[in-house]
Amino acid sequence: MRLINRLFSFRPIKTMTTQKVSYLTQQQAKDIDEELFNEYKFSVDQLMELAGLSCAAAIEKAYNDKHQYSKCLVIVGGGNNGGDGLVCARHLKLFGYEPFVFYPKRTDKPLYRNLLHQCERMNIEVIDKIPTESNINLIVDAIFGFGFAGEIREPYNQILKEIKNLEKTKPIISIDIPSGWDVEKGPINDDCIQPECVISLTAPKLCMKYFQGKYHFLGGRFVPKALEEKYKINLPNYSNSEQIIQI
Amino acid sequence: MRLINRLFSFRPIKTMTTQKVSYLTQQQAKDIDEELFNEYKFSVDQLMELAGLSCAAAIEKAYNDKHQYSKCLVIVGGGNNGGDGLVCARHLKLFGYEPFVFYPKRTDKPLYRNLLHQCERMNIEVIDKIPTESNINLIVDAIFGFGFAGEIREPYNQILKEIKNLEKTKPIISIDIPSGWDVEKGPINDDCIQPECVISLTAPKLCMKYFQGKYHFLGGRFVPKALEEKYKINLPNYSNSEQIIQI
Repeated sequence: MRLINRLFSFRPIKTMTTQKVSYLTQQQAKDIDEELFNEYKFSVDQLMELAGLSCAAAIEKAYNDKHQYSKCLVIVGGGNNGGDGLVCARHLKLFGYEPFVFYPKRTDKPLYRNLLHQCERMNIEVIDKIPTESNINLIVDAIFGFGFAGEIREPYNQILKEIKNLEKTKPIISIDIPSGWDVEKGPINDDCIQPECVISLTAPKLCMKYFQGKYHFLGGRFVPKALEEKYKINLPNYSNSEQIIQI
Repeated sequence: MRLINRLFSFRPIKTMTTQKVSYLTQQQAKDIDEELFNEYKFSVDQLMELAGLSCAAAIEKAYNDKHQYSKCLVIVGGGNNGGDGLVCARHLKLFGYEPFVFYPKRTDKPLYRNLLHQCERMNIEVIDKIPTESNINLIVDAIFGFGFAGEIREPYNQILKEIKNLEKTKPIISIDIPSGWDVEKGPINDDCIQPECVISLTAPKLCMKYFQGKYHFLGGRFVPKALEEKYKINLPNYSNSEQIIQI
């Protein structure tokens, strides 16, 4: 039944771009990020809000049926990727979904406490383990972002195994990169999750050349033209006031 | 020529709502604002980013032709309305317009300094007087918001006169309320500007019952359902992931 639903729900999204898009190394991604904060003086609050909004907008585009995809589990890591996830959960709620948040290791910084508080005050349930399969329609992976390197520690190792077990029956949506993937080399072994949808933020990272899922979006429409030119990256032209573009 | 252009460029926007929308008193607007910051723990950065983005999205919808409406003068006041204007200018630039900013009295707070810096770094020109008519296609009034009361002081009195002189030939777009209007009673005399477009933020204020312009949008899609219920306000249902709705 589930598979039939998914077959029928698939629809090509018209705004897909045919433009050439650059893929960033991990170092480039870090440099651009630092430049946005240090040179352009953006605050984390600002860019996280736009990034999380674009993730929610992409999910709303690809999984538009709020009845079928009502229950979105957002799994939140301890860094900025997790923060994007908390913002995404809040906008999903405003868009008519019923997100709930699993946030195993909370970050003790004011911004993160406030982002979680906003979710809680908006009646987004915060749970302490991954619920049974029947209580989830979508899984949003907001565990690791472009800064990830090295070994995956607990509790995330176990969590990624649980996500992997669900990936045959539930769409997995990763924010920026699929968690556990090498930022440049992609999936390093067969245990890696294979999300159905990824929302690359700012610009795709090299690992996305190995992406075989259904939907790849670009979000985080805040990159100044001068920065694109400085780093010699090609970004597609977003339409109108859209915060995402399918690539 | 200008009038002919405007006649041809007018197009009904399909997302107009027929739902009943509440209009706020000034006190209600202040209470909701305080509650968003104090109870929901939103930062000004977050909500200003979403508010300014929605203003730019509304302008992009109503004045979509970037050739005809390229040169947008954003007039920035000293408070939060001005901050929304600076964010709006930045997103207009990302949307393909060529905004420029007139910011006669700068606010000496880190957030405002950074918002201005972001504009400057994105090659948005900051000018020190209203330019000649031929160099403007659109005027964005981001001078006063819902907190405004009392006398209009200089330099804003003179600036509003200059805007008034341009309103027959240039579309004026006001953020949240038309500057100089009483927040509840609307235009208090014939000197008041009559914008062609207003983007109400959070919810329209009572003064908007007197609005006779062409486009009225609602933006600032961040109001929690519980807050709508607490203040017994009706907000229209935004579509999909849209950040604005025409009302």
